[in-house]
Amino acid sequence: MDFSLSPRAADLSARVREFVDTHVEPLEAELVADVAARRLRGEDPWRIDPRIEEAKAEARRQGLWNLFLPAGHEGPYAERFGTDGGAGLSNLDYAPVAEQMGRSFIAPLIFNSNAPDTGNMEVLLKYGSHAQKDRWLEPLLDGKVRSAFLMTEPGVASSDATNMQARAEIDGDEVVLNGRKWWSSGAGHPDCKVGIYMAVTDPNADRHHRHSMVVVPMDHPGVRVERMLSTLGQYDEPLGHGEVTLTDVRLPVDHIIGGPGRAFEIAQGRLGPGRVHHCMRLIGLTEKCLDLALQRSVSRVAFGKPLAQLGGNREKFAEARIKINQARLHVLHAAWKLDTFGSAASLSEVSEIKVAVPRMACEVIDFAIQIHGGGGTGPDFPLAAAYAGARSLRLADGPDEVHLGVVSRLMLAPYAKKAMAVGAAQ
Amino acid sequence: MDFSLSPRAADLSARVREFVDTHVEPLEAELVADVAARRLRGEDPWRIDPRIEEAKAEARRQGLWNLFLPAGHEGPYAERFGTDGGAGLSNLDYAPVAEQMGRSFIAPLIFNSNAPDTGNMEVLLKYGSHAQKDRWLEPLLDGKVRSAFLMTEPGVASSDATNMQARAEIDGDEVVLNGRKWWSSGAGHPDCKVGIYMAVTDPNADRHHRHSMVVVPMDHPGVRVERMLSTLGQYDEPLGHGEVTLTDVRLPVDHIIGGPGRAFEIAQGRLGPGRVHHCMRLIGLTEKCLDLALQRSVSRVAFGKPLAQLGGNREKFAEARIKINQARLHVLHAAWKLDTFGSAASLSEVSEIKVAVPRMACEVIDFAIQIHGGGGTGPDFPLAAAYAGARSLRLADGPDEVHLGVVSRLMLAPYAKKAMAVGAAQ
Amino acid sequence: MDFSLSPRAADLSARVREFVDTHVEPLEAELVADVAARRLRGEDPWRIDPRIEEAKAEARRQGLWNLFLPAGHEGPYAERFGTDGGAGLSNLDYAPVAEQMGRSFIAPLIFNSNAPDTGNMEVLLKYGSHAQKDRWLEPLLDGKVRSAFLMTEPGVASSDATNMQARAEIDGDEVVLNGRKWWSSGAGHPDCKVGIYMAVTDPNADRHHRHSMVVVPMDHPGVRVERMLSTLGQYDEPLGHGEVTLTDVRLPVDHIIGGPGRAFEIAQGRLGPGRVHHCMRLIGLTEKCLDLALQRSVSRVAFGKPLAQLGGNREKFAEARIKINQARLHVLHAAWKLDTFGSAASLSEVSEIKVAVPRMACEVIDFAIQIHGGGGTGPDFPLAAAYAGARSLRLADGPDEVHLGVVSRLMLAPYAKKAMAVGAAQ
Amino acid sequence: MDFSLSPRAADLSARVREFVDTHVEPLEAELVADVAARRLRGEDPWRIDPRIEEAKAEARRQGLWNLFLPAGHEGPYAERFGTDGGAGLSNLDYAPVAEQMGRSFIAPLIFNSNAPDTGNMEVLLKYGSHAQKDRWLEPLLDGKVRSAFLMTEPGVASSDATNMQARAEIDGDEVVLNGRKWWSSGAGHPDCKVGIYMAVTDPNADRHHRHSMVVVPMDHPGVRVERMLSTLGQYDEPLGHGEVTLTDVRLPVDHIIGGPGRAFEIAQGRLGPGRVHHCMRLIGLTEKCLDLALQRSVSRVAFGKPLAQLGGNREKFAEARIKINQARLHVLHAAWKLDTFGSAASLSEVSEIKVAVPRMACEVIDFAIQIHGGGGTGPDFPLAAAYAGARSLRLADGPDEVHLGVVSRLMLAPYAKKAMAVGAAQ
Repeated sequence: MDFSLSPRAADLSARVREFVDTHVEPLEAELVADVAARRLRGEDPWRIDPRIEEAKAEARRQGLWNLFLPAGHEGPYAERFGTDGGAGLSNLDYAPVAEQMGRSFIAPLIFNSNAPDTGNMEVLLKYGSHAQKDRWLEPLLDGKVRSAFLMTEPGVASSDATNMQARAEIDGDEVVLNGRKWWSSGAGHPDCKVGIYMAVTDPNADRHHRHSMVVVPMDHPGVRVERMLSTLGQYDEPLGHGEVTLTDVRLPVDHIIGGPGRAFEIAQGRLGPGRVHHCMRLIGLTEKCLDLALQRSVSRVAFGKPLAQLGGNREKFAEARIKINQARLHVLHAAWKLDTFGSAASLSEVSEIKVAVPRMACEVIDFAIQIHGGGGTGPDFPLAAAYAGARSLRLADGPDEVHLGVVSRLMLAPYAKKAMAVGAAQ
Repeated sequence: MDFSLSPRAADLSARVREFVDTHVEPLEAELVADVAARRLRGEDPWRIDPRIEEAKAEARRQGLWNLFLPAGHEGPYAERFGTDGGAGLSNLDYAPVAEQMGRSFIAPLIFNSNAPDTGNMEVLLKYGSHAQKDRWLEPLLDGKVRSAFLMTEPGVASSDATNMQARAEIDGDEVVLNGRKWWSSGAGHPDCKVGIYMAVTDPNADRHHRHSMVVVPMDHPGVRVERMLSTLGQYDEPLGHGEVTLTDVRLPVDHIIGGPGRAFEIAQGRLGPGRVHHCMRLIGLTEKCLDLALQRSVSRVAFGKPLAQLGGNREKFAEARIKINQARLHVLHAAWKLDTFGSAASLSEVSEIKVAVPRMACEVIDFAIQIHGGGGTGPDFPLAAAYAGARSLRLADGPDEVHLGVVSRLMLAPYAKKAMAVGAAQ
Repeated sequence: MDFSLSPRAADLSARVREFVDTHVEPLEAELVADVAARRLRGEDPWRIDPRIEEAKAEARRQGLWNLFLPAGHEGPYAERFGTDGGAGLSNLDYAPVAEQMGRSFIAPLIFNSNAPDTGNMEVLLKYGSHAQKDRWLEPLLDGKVRSAFLMTEPGVASSDATNMQARAEIDGDEVVLNGRKWWSSGAGHPDCKVGIYMAVTDPNADRHHRHSMVVVPMDHPGVRVERMLSTLGQYDEPLGHGEVTLTDVRLPVDHIIGGPGRAFEIAQGRLGPGRVHHCMRLIGLTEKCLDLALQRSVSRVAFGKPLAQLGGNREKFAEARIKINQARLHVLHAAWKLDTFGSAASLSEVSEIKVAVPRMACEVIDFAIQIHGGGGTGPDFPLAAAYAGARSLRLADGPDEVHLGVVSRLMLAPYAKKAMAVGAAQ
Repeated sequence: MDFSLSPRAADLSARVREFVDTHVEPLEAELVADVAARRLRGEDPWRIDPRIEEAKAEARRQGLWNLFLPAGHEGPYAERFGTDGGAGLSNLDYAPVAEQMGRSFIAPLIFNSNAPDTGNMEVLLKYGSHAQKDRWLEPLLDGKVRSAFLMTEPGVASSDATNMQARAEIDGDEVVLNGRKWWSSGAGHPDCKVGIYMAVTDPNADRHHRHSMVVVPMDHPGVRVERMLSTLGQYDEPLGHGEVTLTDVRLPVDHIIGGPGRAFEIAQGRLGPGRVHHCMRLIGLTEKCLDLALQRSVSRVAFGKPLAQLGGNREKFAEARIKINQARLHVLHAAWKLDTFGSAASLSEVSEIKVAVPRMACEVIDFAIQIHGGGGTGPDFPLAAAYAGARSLRLADGPDEVHLGVVSRLMLAPYAKKAMAVGAAQ
């Protein structure tokens, strides 16, 4: 057992942190103010600021591009598009890098490592046809286009995928898409050119072979972003979360990724690493909020003392430190488990962190808000947006309850088996 | 001891509830959609929908107007402006009425019983001069104008009023106002014509006689609403929370309420009932969110069962019921204590509910969000706004920490005294 | 609505408090030490100290005897045996009296108002035959004998009464008892002469008519107290909790209370008030522990300050105050509901307090332990025993989970009905 | 970073687990019953059962002896007395071994790795003179004698060592001991022949050089075990916690370990590893309790379902898994930090786990009790004793509050410095 970072993880996470501190955070503050101002003036807040493109170019120049690109798939793409010129990173090595990216809402975009593009790129990399790779993966790796992921539906409890109502029906050599999706992250970006859409192809197939994933050009007739959704009041520009309808969208059948009925298989592989990324970014965001709270607590004075010396605040800081440290080790361990034993062996670990980390983040960020007083809930600090991000992760990618169910099912199975064996023997 | 509502409280709360269900909730949904649409189209969301004025007229017709107007001050105003034609309600009788109003964000406005107007009207009623009453109280009671309360400042920890930097300096027969205030609730309303501004008049006076409250016409030169603030992403139209600067605002010295240096005394009387109102409205809002969650939990199905039957959801509903019921009794008791023994004797009770109720509301509303899945965080349910309202009440009117400090100070005092006596005797 | 105590409740609770402070607490300390010493010397700790009998006599002289005796059943017993010479108290009036009794473990015994005797006496009063009353109720009311309640079983989850394995089978004019019970409270008292035993008479009857309650002389052949049980290390002398076996115990059939098959009906009536008593006593015990913590926190010094001034302790005291106050109001409201609307209408309220109060007590007492340092876990303070008492009440009389289930069932029923109606109409 | 156990840690922890399952747990059940029976019969429960000595001999035979003996001090002692014949284990390698020992209360004793003997042996090993080693360390390593640690005092808040009242005063070539200590763990063991006593030698020296540690033969005149203390009702035989007085105990001055005034220095080195051991043992104990709860939950049936399927129990199991896993990683990381960077660099980590692990254990064990119903609080399961052990660790070795203070002090220091620098520059 060894808790030290590998030299490459240490180097990359330090360089990403430096880049975030120097280039991204000042830019973020300006962009947030700019979006607010545009909104006030009745101008479109969904546009790409040229400074973002400049920052992306700089990140790429520094070799901090596509760092999410997983080990084992480096091949020609790694060479051409990044991962610091080397091979892909393991989940364990990428995790501390993702943490540093998480300190800023826009940093992942700037490093071309933002959700849902990372997951979409992994899917295309792993399951995409040559044509799909040429048309969509390359510009995505190049940072020229963005993508959306279309899975959750407004009409049903989407935590149970068997509820899914959207359709992707085969009609000769075409697949016909009809459905309403929401919380389609990435759909607000002006460069969002492609979506990966999950829907039912064969409702009579067994539970794990009913669904397909289809590559959908977002400008195809019948595809319509109905509206952008706010999450606890936040629109998360420039990516955002859309409500999207697909009405009689007809595409060649080769737009189905890996062929019909393979959506579940594809989703499985996508989820483990994606949850590790989400969790590590959220830990970075939580550390950022804690930083702000610590700064505030030593500089603001009430009743003759800095806030840090009042009431139970010191204890609450220590509690925050404990919670974050435990959460980080938990995620790193899950990443190691994924790397070492694979997805199937890591089901419990991945579900555990998916529950534990967003909850921890909500608690710590809530405390940081409290330390900031009224200002903490307002637009001058990134805290309200951080809280919204953390809170929504208790629902996105499966609500807490579903993941707790996975963990307990795995815990109880051997005991139930033994109990049945005992029962049978009696 | 008797836990049954008085006939008048029972009647009024039932009628208010009926009115809210029938007239206000459908309107609220339309207004929320309308504000979102206006914002999207780049139109001003800060305007008064004529339907609000119609609803106000109807509420007044039904005798559901100015119900907050406290007992003991009914006099001519009660007769002319409401409180169902009778005398003012005690805090205890008003509390269940306020609960029903709290189920909708706009209901208090429609019943002319919204913060901060209620508190401002009480202050004018109790401490205002004849001229101040004629000019401001009458149109407020009449629902013709709205008001703001200008106390919190961005530059200092405002939970400690001795930090206050804003000035209200006497210069001959004028008072000169300079200061920057934020979270000035009500400042966004187009009819917001008057503010009550709290500031330092004599920094050398003792701690409780330094500050004054000044009636400020919002269109006076030097008064400027710099921006409207979002609270966890919500703007709370049409009232909102403003950042307001006052620059060399000169007013006749008779604009100081009750004379210079009396702000603390005035604030004390204002706070007890105001906190009871806030808490009861919040309990109503929490009940509304719980209603939505219960409806959702029996109608949404996942894994073959309604959500209500999954995981620990039933237990969480029961926990919510327990928390709300305890909170309501707690507030009703505080209201009774205020009525029976006055503000000074109720310091602990008022601080206790101020801590306990918003926290409870956050927990229950958060659960209601979770039951709603992703939709619960979005714009289609009142849950995100409810959460923002509950959360911000953990800071508004004194952060939790300050109120916990009050409660513990009162608890410890007799023990510390006894311990000192013992120490001295040894 | 009115939160003031009735004159009688105010008077009795003040007098009980005075009696507890003056006579009971000093005695309790001596008895605890004495039990420890006897145990150490290998002597029987299950004996009745004559000072207890003296204190009982004094309590009776002062009219503080059988105060639990419920309104409506006063008749000749109230006259002869107590309730301060007046009629029985309502649940609401008795509640604050029970709170004061709860401050000491032995006080309820001294006021002849301890569980399980109170419940047993109520059952005999309400359902007992004349013969049962003469033989058992009179000496119980007189404080001459004690009783046990035999319901819970070691072999099955007793929270589900349909699991019950013990038998009370009719054989001609006899009833034959066979079973193993545990947590039979009261069974350790040397004067415990009678038990009320619940068991299955007719396993084929419907769920609510299977069980009977039987009056069992504890010295009858076949009745055996196998051992006394510790609860979190406490034996709760002199009453205690026994494991009791009944082996072919034959009794005349008239020993069945109210006739065969009525146990459920009898149990229902017993439970509401009993839970109110338990909860109020526990609130009194919690207040006692909080008192000790407050005293300790102002007198112990560390790092140059009294403990009260360190870390987050003050906030934790305020939290304790909030929790206790909410809990007390919750129980008082449930008592009022029971008095006003009866048991069936108060199911939710009674289950709510049964969950909420012991949990609250555990939290506050745990904090009091923490304030006392290592000593708080040890034998020199009543805190460890208080914690054990509070914790065991999360299981006794139905575990939290069962009561939460009751509350949520009642909450969900109307929503589920409406949802089904909507479903049917579609 | 690598989360796999070293081969030696994997091997030893597996063998210890096997030994505990096979030899220790069955013995423990018998010993617990035996102590209870002896107590009931008025016989001395503080005696050593010969089966313990047999088990010790077997553990030693298997090379599972003195595994705590730290790396770097192996020398002749490791060769002669154990640590599986190899060199000492690092904290990180010993941690999983300690976890397995923690599953049984008596296992650490059987492996000669129980507190406080481990800490006392480490102190003697590191700071003891040759004479002290010969006389005390050898028989301790040999398992022939036991020892106590005498630090906490009943009269003062011992979390602040400057409060200490006990004295170890130099008088010529003697040191004279006077003091009252309690929670002196190990003092109940019949073979407890030696204590390490901490007391003030020079009250005028600086805070870190006032105290000395003295080796005290427990049978020396003036040393008296006044009584054994219960912790939440548990006596923790055969080691126990004593209250010990020292009255004019005169010893040659060479009994002071390392010379006068070095107690703080010695205590520092002792504490880090000791807390890692405590925490890992507690994690093992918690896993044991969770095992019992899982078994119970699949085998007990209520309302037609195994407990595991009722209410929110499954979610609570998952929560327990998450908490334990986070806690374990947290402790392992602290152990690694201690090994890699030393005590001074690991202050925060050690304090973090000292707070987090016992709290986690209390929560999980409390849940295991709840799953067991009334039985969970009683003598038939190790749960009540486990809870008592976990709860007392929130106080022993420094209460939570002191450790949270350490963590927050370290967190705030750099921010406060920066804030001051900014302030100075303005």
